[in-house]
Amino acid sequence: MQNFTFHNPTRILFGSGQIAAIHQEIPSGARVLMTYGGGSVVKTGTLAEVKAALTDFTLLEFGGIEPNPTYETLMQAVALARREQVDFLLAVGGGSVIDGTKFIAAAIPFAGEPWDMLAKQAPITAAVPFGTVLTLPATGSEMNSFSVITRAATQDKLGFGNPLVFPRFSVLDPTKTYTLPPRQVANGVIDAFVHIAEQYLTYPDDAKVQDRFAEGLLLTLIEDGPKALAEADNYAVRANLMWTATLALNGLIGAGVPQDWATHMIGHEITALHGLDHAQTLAIVLPAMLQIRRRDKREKLLQYAARIWDLHDGDEDARIDTAIRRTRDFFESLQVPTRLSSYGIGPEAITPLVRALERHGMTALGERQNVDLEQSRQVLALAC
Amino acid sequence: MQNFTFHNPTRILFGSGQIAAIHQEIPSGARVLMTYGGGSVVKTGTLAEVKAALTDFTLLEFGGIEPNPTYETLMQAVALARREQVDFLLAVGGGSVIDGTKFIAAAIPFAGEPWDMLAKQAPITAAVPFGTVLTLPATGSEMNSFSVITRAATQDKLGFGNPLVFPRFSVLDPTKTYTLPPRQVANGVIDAFVHIAEQYLTYPDDAKVQDRFAEGLLLTLIEDGPKALAEADNYAVRANLMWTATLALNGLIGAGVPQDWATHMIGHEITALHGLDHAQTLAIVLPAMLQIRRRDKREKLLQYAARIWDLHDGDEDARIDTAIRRTRDFFESLQVPTRLSSYGIGPEAITPLVRALERHGMTALGERQNVDLEQSRQVLALAC
Repeated sequence: MQNFTFHNPTRILFGSGQIAAIHQEIPSGARVLMTYGGGSVVKTGTLAEVKAALTDFTLLEFGGIEPNPTYETLMQAVALARREQVDFLLAVGGGSVIDGTKFIAAAIPFAGEPWDMLAKQAPITAAVPFGTVLTLPATGSEMNSFSVITRAATQDKLGFGNPLVFPRFSVLDPTKTYTLPPRQVANGVIDAFVHIAEQYLTYPDDAKVQDRFAEGLLLTLIEDGPKALAEADNYAVRANLMWTATLALNGLIGAGVPQDWATHMIGHEITALHGLDHAQTLAIVLPAMLQIRRRDKREKLLQYAARIWDLHDGDEDARIDTAIRRTRDFFESLQVPTRLSSYGIGPEAITPLVRALERHGMTALGERQNVDLEQSRQVLALAC
Repeated sequence: MQNFTFHNPTRILFGSGQIAAIHQEIPSGARVLMTYGGGSVVKTGTLAEVKAALTDFTLLEFGGIEPNPTYETLMQAVALARREQVDFLLAVGGGSVIDGTKFIAAAIPFAGEPWDMLAKQAPITAAVPFGTVLTLPATGSEMNSFSVITRAATQDKLGFGNPLVFPRFSVLDPTKTYTLPPRQVANGVIDAFVHIAEQYLTYPDDAKVQDRFAEGLLLTLIEDGPKALAEADNYAVRANLMWTATLALNGLIGAGVPQDWATHMIGHEITALHGLDHAQTLAIVLPAMLQIRRRDKREKLLQYAARIWDLHDGDEDARIDTAIRRTRDFFESLQVPTRLSSYGIGPEAITPLVRALERHGMTALGERQNVDLEQSRQVLALAC
């Protein structure tokens, strides 16, 4: 096990009806800017429920944060928040709204060009505090300090992280996910699955607890992901998925272990250049990534085959093949295709994607920093 | 899954050499009172290492906090801290020192008789901040807000909990556990094991993640507990045990699930009246408790039999019997006897123990509040 620091101060309010409790979590007298995405939180009544819980506060709104939230949109919220002297933010939505709100929170007090926080790792020394009301279990952003933002003008999709952008609290009410479209449910399951894979499918490092926690989360996704699509209002299923997606990326299973993230880096470029959903890109890249890097990941792939897919006997390479195939089949069973071609993207897309990786300095990816541009090209070729 | 709030702000500094980092975690200019137990942290050099890391601070010391820390001893530290205007505490030791330090932290600013915090649930509105350097993985006190204190004069052993007594940070350096006596290592494994059992072996409540996390921790204890006794300086083993014991009682696996704690309540009385180690009492009580309450716990016992002891086939009652027997055998394999008689305690001890439970209001224990004094008597009789 590697040395690590683990610190996660986000307060989780989990369960049906918890939105009513959020007024206790916001400093009295706060000027609150509520951020959200499209109309779904309006249509489902979640926004109205949040407003009803916050009648004691000055409440402003900023809607229209898009999936893969853009710098251009978010800077409008920053201007509004500065103008209105907002001192608390409340993100109501999924990972995109929360990621966007983290950017807004850090950008409001930032002196200079806020994009530099991402493009130049400019130091972040302050952020407006914020909470979240999660409506889409997927990214884990509700309990971590990371954010990924897209600059529409340049098609750059970059991340930043800072302890100052941990949410102060997050409401996880599984009933708020009943009305999600199946595509978003499936995307959420895959997003969480690949978050876990990035922290688990590397090489053994004597971290038994982290491994078993990761495996417990994967098994839960495999059991309950399909059920969530079949039974939209099954509370137990939605609750298990929601808590799983949060724990998949709150720092716990990644503490003290090697981490990969090459699948995410390549996926980001596919979204930036072709507009695919984040989870779609992960479903495309992960199976190919595991296949191309099967030698480096051999021991963990065998453990994954045994503990997740119950493959204990016979030829080791055959077990790995089967485990990767089952992973692909699982994604496909959620109606998320796992080939670039299924999204109308042909082999001619590979070179621009590799160039984008190069432009963003993604030339030594993975837990061993040995995924160079040539290996990324191979992964993309296998994903066609 | 039940509704829950989860919030754990303790910062964990995990790994070899982390003591050197603690000066960054204490406010500059702080007057620090270092608390510890017997001479072992002196002998092993851990105390000197902590002192060397804190040369920039005013450092005071209070040693002599005993196992099952007493109100009488701790009040001496409270007097010292008040006299010396201490504004940060640093516990160096195991669960007893940390539990004791939580009491000191809350007692220093407490107006009135601090024992009332335990005996009368007097509200706690302030506490001196503190950190810990853990030397004995066992209680989880290093990452939770609970504390158990004994009043020597009356043989009362009572607990309190408050968010104000979360440690600000805890250093978990596995190398600091190499020199522990085997008895303390074994006790620590059993303490963590029973903490998990109290949160897991209840009844099913659709909490797949909490179940699988609990199972992952149990499996790690079963695998690495005996190894820690056999290979004192195996870093990987000590690291896995240390992180397991912390996660066994940091609120995570208990969030949203029914909890038992009857074994602990009965165990506390055995320690108070007979002076046994806390873990010894748990090793005595748990197997008898599971046997007596096997009907209420049937579904989880079958799950435990399957996932922990690989018992999948044949008669269900036989599987439960085997699972309980293996639990007992595991404790015995760590050289911790599981019968009252092995500690020279006969059946005549039962009535005084039951009376002590009654005196402390422990008349409706367990996840269903149906463990009355008669059932506790049955458990003790079976544990003879």
